[in-house]
Amino acid sequence: MSLIVQKYGGTSVGTPERIVNVANRILATKAEGHQVVAVVSAMSGVTNKLIELADQVTGEGEPTEREMDVLLSTGEQTTIALTAMALNSMGAKAVSLTGAQAGIETDGVHTKARISNISPAGVHELLDDGNIVILAGFQGKTPDGKITTLGRGGSDLTAIAMAAAIDADLCQIFTDVDGVYTCDPRVVPDAKKIDEISYDELLEMASSGTKVMQSRSVEFAKKFGVRFEVRSSLNNNPGTLVKEETMSMESVVIRGVSLERAQAKVTISGVKDLPGSASRIFGAVSEENILVDMIVQNVSKTGITDISFTVHKDDVAKAEAALKPVLAELGDGAMVGAEDGIAKLSVVGIGMRSHSGVAAEMFKALSDAGINIEMISTSEIKITVTVSEAQIDEAAKVMHAAFGLAEA
Amino acid sequence: MSLIVQKYGGTSVGTPERIVNVANRILATKAEGHQVVAVVSAMSGVTNKLIELADQVTGEGEPTEREMDVLLSTGEQTTIALTAMALNSMGAKAVSLTGAQAGIETDGVHTKARISNISPAGVHELLDDGNIVILAGFQGKTPDGKITTLGRGGSDLTAIAMAAAIDADLCQIFTDVDGVYTCDPRVVPDAKKIDEISYDELLEMASSGTKVMQSRSVEFAKKFGVRFEVRSSLNNNPGTLVKEETMSMESVVIRGVSLERAQAKVTISGVKDLPGSASRIFGAVSEENILVDMIVQNVSKTGITDISFTVHKDDVAKAEAALKPVLAELGDGAMVGAEDGIAKLSVVGIGMRSHSGVAAEMFKALSDAGINIEMISTSEIKITVTVSEAQIDEAAKVMHAAFGLAEA
Repeated sequence: MSLIVQKYGGTSVGTPERIVNVANRILATKAEGHQVVAVVSAMSGVTNKLIELADQVTGEGEPTEREMDVLLSTGEQTTIALTAMALNSMGAKAVSLTGAQAGIETDGVHTKARISNISPAGVHELLDDGNIVILAGFQGKTPDGKITTLGRGGSDLTAIAMAAAIDADLCQIFTDVDGVYTCDPRVVPDAKKIDEISYDELLEMASSGTKVMQSRSVEFAKKFGVRFEVRSSLNNNPGTLVKEETMSMESVVIRGVSLERAQAKVTISGVKDLPGSASRIFGAVSEENILVDMIVQNVSKTGITDISFTVHKDDVAKAEAALKPVLAELGDGAMVGAEDGIAKLSVVGIGMRSHSGVAAEMFKALSDAGINIEMISTSEIKITVTVSEAQIDEAAKVMHAAFGLAEA
Repeated sequence: MSLIVQKYGGTSVGTPERIVNVANRILATKAEGHQVVAVVSAMSGVTNKLIELADQVTGEGEPTEREMDVLLSTGEQTTIALTAMALNSMGAKAVSLTGAQAGIETDGVHTKARISNISPAGVHELLDDGNIVILAGFQGKTPDGKITTLGRGGSDLTAIAMAAAIDADLCQIFTDVDGVYTCDPRVVPDAKKIDEISYDELLEMASSGTKVMQSRSVEFAKKFGVRFEVRSSLNNNPGTLVKEETMSMESVVIRGVSLERAQAKVTISGVKDLPGSASRIFGAVSEENILVDMIVQNVSKTGITDISFTVHKDDVAKAEAALKPVLAELGDGAMVGAEDGIAKLSVVGIGMRSHSGVAAEMFKALSDAGINIEMISTSEIKITVTVSEAQIDEAAKVMHAAFGLAEA
């Protein structure tokens, strides 16, 4: 008998019929002799409806975050009750728990609270008593009883944190894909599902466009050593196991290829190459909460340089507006300009650490295919380049083939 | 400065606009210098939608009551958050509390729990800190933290129980009528709003068709001496004050006239007049959860009698079916029959206790109007008769005039 934590997202529980399907799946796991804690999200669409109501009652003003949490947490509470009663109607012993009832304590930062402590005694008691526990994702309470929510990806976090707290044997994240792929199969048809991946590789893939899970949950799992499996709620295929890295993982140089479209390059030219220039630029941009990615500074000629960075193309206007007021401080003829229609291509793999020449191989393959690279940035286990957005699919296919990922 | 508990029902908070109206009304009360606790219900329609979802996930089976409470309590939780954030957006200090957060403890009888204790320290603290408290009606928690709901009329009960627990100066039940009337104004156009009524009078009127509040809440208010006002959320008219009876109240013989349509009379004839016959009859009927009202047993002739009672006409078939199996035990030729198309007319007033001849006056007035009475039942402060449903409006007008209620 194992102790298994499962997590089902908003799409998996999006209709009454799907809730019944999820209940069947939970029941099948229980029937195999396991103890089950199932974390569920709000039914898809519910959260948006609640936000709309909040907007309607507050008019011009922003809804207060304390009350937003009270409001949004009803979404998961609805799902836990429906899932538990579906299981009950199948003859199973199941009880629902809100985040607060399950002992999930957080700090008081409403709408993006951090889990500070989990007291799982109640969960253990219910499990030992033969119950399936249906737990509301995304929510917790402060030590003095206020309702909080965990922000984006909060239900994944609930599952992983609860798996850590109750020392579960396995945590299964059910989603609408079969697992983590070597590349997006819509782009590279022979992309393969990855059987095992390290936390760090998944983190780098997530940060470079492979949207399987929020980095925050993966980081939490890494910190507490929670193994988890990303798998589909639509079939019974095994998924991708995410875990600490092993020696054997290093034999694979590249684990996967990520791509991110709709990027733009913002360039500030005529910048005096003086200490403080970069901090002025990125200070101004970050104040607008714009996510900046690859940053490249040209070699300085006669004390004047260009600084470029990538942003999502929707953020270009905001970034330019934020930069205009500081241009005068950067240099006499400093100017800001932008170019969109670019995309980012990343290769990720912990094997890179012990294999040299990965960058050279990457650049050669792209060059052989006639694909021009503009910006380059590297981390210990990732190399990212920008290419024309029109060539990104071709570039991904070339990378996938060059590193033999289809044969993996 | 007074401490006021207000309660707003589902219709009053049925749309975002109405929630804003309620927030304005709460704010106006606060601006008069009072401390305010506002109890709110689920937005009208929400509870039915949740029940529908429950039916969809449980199919043939009945949803488990524990989970039904988890589900239904999200309705009020949504309203408290929306109301509090509406107030916040108007610049007011307001916080929401679920029943559990407000310290409302109940027994463990899910879907119709009874309040066992209220620990109002948290509410007092919030009020003393200058907050308006928005409290979820209809819900509480068991001592071990399970979510419970209080059943029909639960939000009124929450308001009255909280008013008792925090020793409020006044409890205002906002509804869609101006208060309690001497008779239904749709039937008797010159019906008047009653300024003050005793708990017992309101209880008798409620039990005989005047649907202002559930008896349970009135009984609770009586037990704990909570004065409350029933008034409209649509205007600023004073409502009806419900309180312990006073000497001056007795000077009015009849406080009001209630009527209840769609009744039917079920008669079992040929019953042997032996001990146990009545208990067999009403045992069989009550097992089917049929609400029986007026019971009349004819004078026995040669040891054989008829027993009649009234039920709602929708319950006739069920009552007949329940009685058929016991007919043989009641007498050799015992038979059950039913007659619908009847209605009940009641006059209520604590003044009856000290004024004799009320029944005679009632019967004479009806007889003078050519209205035939069939069954009669009396309590200390109420007289009820059945008349043909076709004549009920006329009968109500006659009663209203006979006891001078329009001049009250």
